[in-house]
Amino acid sequence: MTAPRLTGERLIDAMTPEELDRARRVESVLPALREAAAGADAAGEFPLGHVALLREAGLLGLVVPEEYGGLGGGLRDLAAATFAMGTACPSTALAFFFHNTSASRGLLPLEAIRAGLFEAGEIPEVTAFAERVLKAMAGGQWMGNFASESVKSSGANISIATTARRTEGGWRLDGEKSFGCATGVADVYLVTARLDGVEGTDGLALFLVQRESPGVSSREPWNGIGMRGSANHGIRLDGVTVPDEDALVVPGAFTRMLQVSRGSFVGNQLAIAAVYTGAAQAVYDHTLDRLTSKTFADTGRPIAASPMHQVLIGDMTQRLETAYLWLGRQLELETSEPPLRPKPEVFRQWRLGKGSVTEACFDVALGALKACGTSGATLDGIIGRTLRDLAMGLVMTFPAERGRLEVAKMASEDRATALFATVESGR
Amino acid sequence: MTAPRLTGERLIDAMTPEELDRARRVESVLPALREAAAGADAAGEFPLGHVALLREAGLLGLVVPEEYGGLGGGLRDLAAATFAMGTACPSTALAFFFHNTSASRGLLPLEAIRAGLFEAGEIPEVTAFAERVLKAMAGGQWMGNFASESVKSSGANISIATTARRTEGGWRLDGEKSFGCATGVADVYLVTARLDGVEGTDGLALFLVQRESPGVSSREPWNGIGMRGSANHGIRLDGVTVPDEDALVVPGAFTRMLQVSRGSFVGNQLAIAAVYTGAAQAVYDHTLDRLTSKTFADTGRPIAASPMHQVLIGDMTQRLETAYLWLGRQLELETSEPPLRPKPEVFRQWRLGKGSVTEACFDVALGALKACGTSGATLDGIIGRTLRDLAMGLVMTFPAERGRLEVAKMASEDRATALFATVESGR
Amino acid sequence: MTAPRLTGERLIDAMTPEELDRARRVESVLPALREAAAGADAAGEFPLGHVALLREAGLLGLVVPEEYGGLGGGLRDLAAATFAMGTACPSTALAFFFHNTSASRGLLPLEAIRAGLFEAGEIPEVTAFAERVLKAMAGGQWMGNFASESVKSSGANISIATTARRTEGGWRLDGEKSFGCATGVADVYLVTARLDGVEGTDGLALFLVQRESPGVSSREPWNGIGMRGSANHGIRLDGVTVPDEDALVVPGAFTRMLQVSRGSFVGNQLAIAAVYTGAAQAVYDHTLDRLTSKTFADTGRPIAASPMHQVLIGDMTQRLETAYLWLGRQLELETSEPPLRPKPEVFRQWRLGKGSVTEACFDVALGALKACGTSGATLDGIIGRTLRDLAMGLVMTFPAERGRLEVAKMASEDRATALFATVESGR
Amino acid sequence: MTAPRLTGERLIDAMTPEELDRARRVESVLPALREAAAGADAAGEFPLGHVALLREAGLLGLVVPEEYGGLGGGLRDLAAATFAMGTACPSTALAFFFHNTSASRGLLPLEAIRAGLFEAGEIPEVTAFAERVLKAMAGGQWMGNFASESVKSSGANISIATTARRTEGGWRLDGEKSFGCATGVADVYLVTARLDGVEGTDGLALFLVQRESPGVSSREPWNGIGMRGSANHGIRLDGVTVPDEDALVVPGAFTRMLQVSRGSFVGNQLAIAAVYTGAAQAVYDHTLDRLTSKTFADTGRPIAASPMHQVLIGDMTQRLETAYLWLGRQLELETSEPPLRPKPEVFRQWRLGKGSVTEACFDVALGALKACGTSGATLDGIIGRTLRDLAMGLVMTFPAERGRLEVAKMASEDRATALFATVESGR
Repeated sequence: MTAPRLTGERLIDAMTPEELDRARRVESVLPALREAAAGADAAGEFPLGHVALLREAGLLGLVVPEEYGGLGGGLRDLAAATFAMGTACPSTALAFFFHNTSASRGLLPLEAIRAGLFEAGEIPEVTAFAERVLKAMAGGQWMGNFASESVKSSGANISIATTARRTEGGWRLDGEKSFGCATGVADVYLVTARLDGVEGTDGLALFLVQRESPGVSSREPWNGIGMRGSANHGIRLDGVTVPDEDALVVPGAFTRMLQVSRGSFVGNQLAIAAVYTGAAQAVYDHTLDRLTSKTFADTGRPIAASPMHQVLIGDMTQRLETAYLWLGRQLELETSEPPLRPKPEVFRQWRLGKGSVTEACFDVALGALKACGTSGATLDGIIGRTLRDLAMGLVMTFPAERGRLEVAKMASEDRATALFATVESGR
Repeated sequence: MTAPRLTGERLIDAMTPEELDRARRVESVLPALREAAAGADAAGEFPLGHVALLREAGLLGLVVPEEYGGLGGGLRDLAAATFAMGTACPSTALAFFFHNTSASRGLLPLEAIRAGLFEAGEIPEVTAFAERVLKAMAGGQWMGNFASESVKSSGANISIATTARRTEGGWRLDGEKSFGCATGVADVYLVTARLDGVEGTDGLALFLVQRESPGVSSREPWNGIGMRGSANHGIRLDGVTVPDEDALVVPGAFTRMLQVSRGSFVGNQLAIAAVYTGAAQAVYDHTLDRLTSKTFADTGRPIAASPMHQVLIGDMTQRLETAYLWLGRQLELETSEPPLRPKPEVFRQWRLGKGSVTEACFDVALGALKACGTSGATLDGIIGRTLRDLAMGLVMTFPAERGRLEVAKMASEDRATALFATVESGR
Repeated sequence: MTAPRLTGERLIDAMTPEELDRARRVESVLPALREAAAGADAAGEFPLGHVALLREAGLLGLVVPEEYGGLGGGLRDLAAATFAMGTACPSTALAFFFHNTSASRGLLPLEAIRAGLFEAGEIPEVTAFAERVLKAMAGGQWMGNFASESVKSSGANISIATTARRTEGGWRLDGEKSFGCATGVADVYLVTARLDGVEGTDGLALFLVQRESPGVSSREPWNGIGMRGSANHGIRLDGVTVPDEDALVVPGAFTRMLQVSRGSFVGNQLAIAAVYTGAAQAVYDHTLDRLTSKTFADTGRPIAASPMHQVLIGDMTQRLETAYLWLGRQLELETSEPPLRPKPEVFRQWRLGKGSVTEACFDVALGALKACGTSGATLDGIIGRTLRDLAMGLVMTFPAERGRLEVAKMASEDRATALFATVESGR
Repeated sequence: MTAPRLTGERLIDAMTPEELDRARRVESVLPALREAAAGADAAGEFPLGHVALLREAGLLGLVVPEEYGGLGGGLRDLAAATFAMGTACPSTALAFFFHNTSASRGLLPLEAIRAGLFEAGEIPEVTAFAERVLKAMAGGQWMGNFASESVKSSGANISIATTARRTEGGWRLDGEKSFGCATGVADVYLVTARLDGVEGTDGLALFLVQRESPGVSSREPWNGIGMRGSANHGIRLDGVTVPDEDALVVPGAFTRMLQVSRGSFVGNQLAIAAVYTGAAQAVYDHTLDRLTSKTFADTGRPIAASPMHQVLIGDMTQRLETAYLWLGRQLELETSEPPLRPKPEVFRQWRLGKGSVTEACFDVALGALKACGTSGATLDGIIGRTLRDLAMGLVMTFPAERGRLEVAKMASEDRATALFATVESGR
């Protein structure tokens, strides 16, 4: 075998020729991402030029099947891409990840139809929506994906209070999405809302909202500790009208989609962990370079050789490999054909995996901070930026402590925490 | 996919039909192993009947190629077997592991010949010795493997002071082996010694010593904290004569063998970690059973549902999965065709992996102890036994702290610690 | 200042001359304790001669005020004693600790009377019982203290189902105590039971039961993983009659006692943590001795100087000091005059402290195991014994995970878990 | 006892009336510090008004004896002050700490004279310098303390290359100080330099440099990850002339000072750990407030009550108490009369203590981040700021890993790492 040539090959074993082709497209944009990373962090803004950059590289359709005009990549491609981008600019990688998660709202409904989960009468509406999503992405539209809200339920991971009410020729949306990348940047926002009057998760519905539609606004930019260049401040929807063709309101469509997902939520979640792992790899490489090139004044030996630095490097290496292991195994579980394990086990693994990867990656950044001392402890250098970007990994979605408790419940009571709940907006 | 039927399938993905056949043989001996485990631990003795049991199941030739009369298994089979046996009796699994490592002294020389590492003139001697080892194993001989000695070198993992001197028609061996399973049990002892007068690792040679040869004795049994049924107390060799045909003394043969190994040392090391992982899985299952069946007097709810128990179960589950991940990845790295990564990377991974698996497994046992309280805290119950067996995992070969430091050296100075050194016996 | 001369001075700062006198008595018994420790562990039996040994040294009255014939020591003396004994024989130290906790059933009632918590009519009965306890101890009676039972309540730390029913001239006791040192050894058993027909903790009552009374029996000895020489297997009471003078049945007496305790439960709990800390200090010293005296064959340098050993020694030292800190601070909080902190804070601190000390001590033993390798990994050597004794520390009363959760509840909801509950024996 | 009224009383037990008086002065400035904290962090600038604020409160002479015009406080006062300020503005607390460390250059020489460490002929010069330092501080001069340089030695914690050469009527200083608070703010800079031509630490000398002297300049402000309001960017000295009366150049004066210090370096180091502990306490309080006031939409219960939050709160509480324990014990060791332990033990304790406090405090901030989720994960809120300020604690002086290794060396080889080294400036 030969050593990896492409960044993504550090994560993905034995890429196929097609995967290598797609990975080369990703590789081609890395220099520009790396170049803009510090500025994006400093300004707290998504570099607008990146939309065209990724569009022109064809990457907005990375995971869209070729029949809809995309590149035909799968989860391995997506993880390779977000990992590689994570080594260059974690914020862009994160925003790109969220764009790609939108594809599942096209792919999973089609999969659910094949699995016989939709009635004949429902199939045309579902198919039309799915194709609309996929073709938009392949056609170069950046698709923001807005699910999270600030309301919390004790029994579910994500609670939806944004409400859709029937109106003439379409739907009227009202609500606020607290987190979602590419706010004010994406061409189209994919919005999860609850249908007014429908109880429970059957009422979850999907809408494509044009960024410039009347009633759509960006929330006040917030001053995030990390991932500052991902424009994740979220949107408000005040009486926004969405035409019928941009809505998927078949009752229970959302939960049926989840049934055919191979992973947690709508799948692909591991690709967000690939962002963090890429960032951790980059700060690790940076640290090793620094410590092996700088020397002690009295002995002339590299700083890296001091006993303390050896301890730190050993710990960082172990933690970095730990991140790769959880991520790599999850990828294997979600892509193997035939499946290696039953879905509940794949799902359970990710409850542990998400936190295990993010903790491990953060530890790498923390080790870098300690190992490089005050001279590396700047707000804007790679160590400071990565520490802050990876701190976001500890809080996004759920921390490791929550994942372990959820798995404990599954292991001891065979019960899982609900992923989604709906909350009446009045509350 | 269907749920695993055989114990080994919890570790090994997608077994082939041949692997399943071999795993069924392993499965058939588990009840007897499980039955004898507590007694073997209490007595501190290897259950003698297990030799016949495993011989009759054909398992002594598990990893010997079929052309030499074996079952034709590979590293996946070995790991599946030691894992499965580890769930039943870790001591037996450990002793069986060491028996199987002897096969590498047959397989690697043949591999090194194919790789062109031996001169034409050396090949007959090397081939003869290799085949002798493999046929003995396939023929039902238990082959103890004795390398470790009590002398320590700062620069190598294992130091060899046992010395072979030329004598009429063969070799005379003197020395002491401090650790090695199946002491007094194995039919033949595979002994690593240094050739008198040859400096460095080129002087490492291999000898097959019959258990009952004059001058061979067992060291005093020691009262190990764990793995007490593996008869690991070691041997003394006082002027033991070995005929030429039972010796591999081609200078540098040993180091050439190491070159073709796909893993650390002579390969297969991960199968020892599979023993620990099996033991950890068993104590985990035992704990879950206990905690979900015992209830609180006031609420009638299972003990497992208490907040403290949920925390402990979550932590145990995460640690158990961590063990599987390191082990599974190493197995993949050492068995993939073509190789996924260059050998130094595979080697490096194991320096981290060994300690990562053993720490994780020990943590599972510690969690079991805490979760089950005083009623499970017996010396002889499964929790006490497993805690002690897994404590041995923390010290055998090297602890996690050493592995991390070795990897730090590789990462920062591109230097690795030597695996073997020879030490003049006078010292 | 001068270096500590007495073992207890490693724990207790600035002993008074009286404390030094008492510590010298403790010091005088250490050689005998050390001598018998391995045998007691191997046999799983309390060394019977220790009763006379400690009685003759006057130590059974260590914490009994001089006016009742005792040595007049306080909590500092008790902690110094159990710490010092813990360095020699943790099992004896544990049993001695439990003997001394009985004194609180004399001291706290008298304190509660002074605090005005008893009515005039109750005072004579309470005083008589208290003095009976204290004089018995000062008079050389070993007083076993039996509270724990195997029944678990979700809402309390200890649940009492043993029941006392009125009978002619006294009380009839029925029940089983699952854990308590000096089973079959102590002269008198102090038993906590619930009064038949009285609800809640008001029904908790105390009884002095003679070891040889009809109906008293020892439970089957269990094969504990550690603290095997403390005879902690517990007792059964089948229709045991206790005369009125040996009973404290004033309703609510028990809970009023708890009110005047300065620490958790009936106070003194930190002295059990001193046992573990003494054991950890001893295994630490043993390890340093070993590692600094044994050398590498190639360099002649001590094993201790290897990078791995330096890491392990640094970690062990930090953990050992951590144990001292929690223990020392708790001692300060429970003995300072005037009190440094309000009682709830002192109580809360101990919920954290108990687990923090036991985890730290166990880590020291684990570090010793790793640092000394297979040659120290025996069941019966000091490392193996200490690891097992300290494993008991992780499960006795409650693990660190529970303490942290209890404190979280106090911090966030100002609610504490009840220490005691009564359970109807029929359940 | 009554609950603490003053912030500093959370750290310091049983303050004397004089200490309470001084603590009240500190308390009086906290609102202004708290008010300015976010702005100082955002701008990366020391709030200039704080100099007058602290001067007017008399706090610049906090630890200067009353005979020199100061408030007569000691180490307990200093720790109470930096702790209290740390709850309000860690940057100001840090800068104030460094100001106060200058006092040791007055107090320790006087102490060393009393201890007979100076010859009669040296005493006048030493006394004059010492009094000059103390009177300046008491008189309201902010005294920056500049020791650290960017050059690293493998064998010492701090290496000094800044060089003083004899010139007419005084000394000429050349060099660069990489870190030191109140750069460009302090009235006077206390500078440690090496005397040209004197080998080793005997050549270490002290100089008082006026901020506005010719040749003195501030280094380029750096963009620190935390403690951004402490103006720690350091100074350059290019041919700066210092008159004789502002120099302490008696050979070996510096090392003789160190001999009478009760702690590490020139003492007082624990007061920097008090800064971090104050910051950790503040972020802990903030988190508890948030989690107990915000509720779940479905149950109405506080967020704090969720199982995950209970785990996080329990962990945070344990870590915060751990910081207090190390800090409180060190304070006790460095202030007790007579000393509780020999100086090497006090010194050793701090090698462990510094890292133990900073790790614990950082963990509290990390727990706060996880517990409060994305809504608390801002760069500029109290969680983000504290996380960044406490990240600086992990790198300033030395990380925990180094402290543990240093202690391991002391424990196993009775050797300590040198605190200071001099390096020829040409290197």
